[in-house]
Amino acid sequence: MKKPRIRINDVGVRDGFQIEKNVIPTETKIALIDQLSKTGLAKIEVTSFVHPKFVPNMADAETVLAEIERVPGVIYAALVPNIKGMERAVQCRIDEINVFLSASETHNRANVNRSTEESFADFAVMVKMAKDAGMNINGTISTSFGCPFEGHVDPQRVLDFAAKYMALGFDGLTFADTTGMANPRQVRDLMGRAVGHFGAPKITLHFHNTRSMGLANVVAGIDAGVTSYDASIAGLGGCPFAPGATGNICTEDLVNMLEDMDYDTGVDLDRLLAQAVKIPVIVGHDVPGQVMKAGKTMHLHPVPEKLYTK
Amino acid sequence: MKKPRIRINDVGVRDGFQIEKNVIPTETKIALIDQLSKTGLAKIEVTSFVHPKFVPNMADAETVLAEIERVPGVIYAALVPNIKGMERAVQCRIDEINVFLSASETHNRANVNRSTEESFADFAVMVKMAKDAGMNINGTISTSFGCPFEGHVDPQRVLDFAAKYMALGFDGLTFADTTGMANPRQVRDLMGRAVGHFGAPKITLHFHNTRSMGLANVVAGIDAGVTSYDASIAGLGGCPFAPGATGNICTEDLVNMLEDMDYDTGVDLDRLLAQAVKIPVIVGHDVPGQVMKAGKTMHLHPVPEKLYTK
Repeated sequence: MKKPRIRINDVGVRDGFQIEKNVIPTETKIALIDQLSKTGLAKIEVTSFVHPKFVPNMADAETVLAEIERVPGVIYAALVPNIKGMERAVQCRIDEINVFLSASETHNRANVNRSTEESFADFAVMVKMAKDAGMNINGTISTSFGCPFEGHVDPQRVLDFAAKYMALGFDGLTFADTTGMANPRQVRDLMGRAVGHFGAPKITLHFHNTRSMGLANVVAGIDAGVTSYDASIAGLGGCPFAPGATGNICTEDLVNMLEDMDYDTGVDLDRLLAQAVKIPVIVGHDVPGQVMKAGKTMHLHPVPEKLYTK
Repeated sequence: MKKPRIRINDVGVRDGFQIEKNVIPTETKIALIDQLSKTGLAKIEVTSFVHPKFVPNMADAETVLAEIERVPGVIYAALVPNIKGMERAVQCRIDEINVFLSASETHNRANVNRSTEESFADFAVMVKMAKDAGMNINGTISTSFGCPFEGHVDPQRVLDFAAKYMALGFDGLTFADTTGMANPRQVRDLMGRAVGHFGAPKITLHFHNTRSMGLANVVAGIDAGVTSYDASIAGLGGCPFAPGATGNICTEDLVNMLEDMDYDTGVDLDRLLAQAVKIPVIVGHDVPGQVMKAGKTMHLHPVPEKLYTK
């Protein structure tokens, strides 16, 4: 029987590096992306077109996109927060634009300084710009499973926003658990409805492991039929409200679990781990990834010498 | 509708402290156990009767059991590796004895220096000793989901060992993922069979979060009907083969997830967290618990001042 395929989008060089205080050299990013391209990942979110004043580590977006080596079959995506960013993005070679707003009004204000209505007004313009440039465009709904300011987020509001994206002609949807508030029951419930409305192939899930539920939420998403997941090499990323908390779910931990569960990720875990172990050196601190410390599940150990000496 | 109950057994003072290099003072353990007793936990594994030469931090087993304050309803358990340990244990006030062997022959040799057949021969003696002392006795099957030396462990062998325990008159069974090799699909499959054979009330699951799958495995266990779980405050514990890897699943992270999923754990999470934050001080190093860093899921944050300034 053919194993079911799960598609993985590594967002570490974007969602991870964007919060690093140290400057990550452009050539380091390019070298890492080029290696990630060879691991079998379905997609890599390589940069974002935010204002360099707010996110200095993304100031080199154009250079990164110009100099990475494209591997056929890999989708190269970039995050774009607004029309200004879109004007820069369309000048580059990008397969997929990823835009975002928050399901929570308060979080949208805090994050992009406008109402969700204003966000959607801009998206109507941005979707045309992307299409004219021959790029796919994906709509992310941040705080889909909870807001760090408002708490509970109405699932119907999340589904309404998803429908609005679709009505604007977006190619895909990402439901993001921005600060790690989702639980597996909630994921199963909301994704059951989302898959029914929009179809599994349109949907990606983006989880953070802030409260240790990251991979449990992936399994819940798979139970509901979702087959595309964001993750971050070495578990890069973080939560601005939780110093010391873990960030995005870790790509190699995700691949290890899915391969153990007999899914086909298309990813060469050894190659991925060879890149993951470089990350602590690049960022200058320890990272949350566990498989890079513990080894793959079937990484066996020699039997200690004291055995059979009774 | 009444929420389904999940019973949690904290093993931190045993499975966690046993691997700490620093001496944990007896009065510190007693104070911690007394506080944990007031959080609503179903069970606490408070010590083990191993030889002090091998596990110096458990040398005070008798004193701990003599001096803790018992809270009615809480089960106080102790781990016992052999008949010698049992001779000490029956002199103490213990509600439940927990014995163990490994599903993998190699791991059993490495761990307790005898064959699994020899282990079961001793258990036949130990079950009588426990019953004569008026204590319940639980049988643990270590490496139920994989062995760090042998790799794959035959599920039928695990179920056969469980049946042997039951035939000897044991009161309960723990299936342990000793070095964090279990995945959710495997847990669902094996526990589906185990629940069918032995009934859910007899079964406890013991997971390590070594490869980030700990809470995902709990959800898989619940899906299969299992309602009792071991966990370790602050995520104490570890894996001798994986320096830097996380240990047992973390009790307060587990409670946070289960309460979010609308299960009744009986545990007061705030009280538990108040104890968890003391653990890094007690052990002298950082711990894997995430909720103690990120806050409970619904721990909301003030809206940043720059909001609504557009």
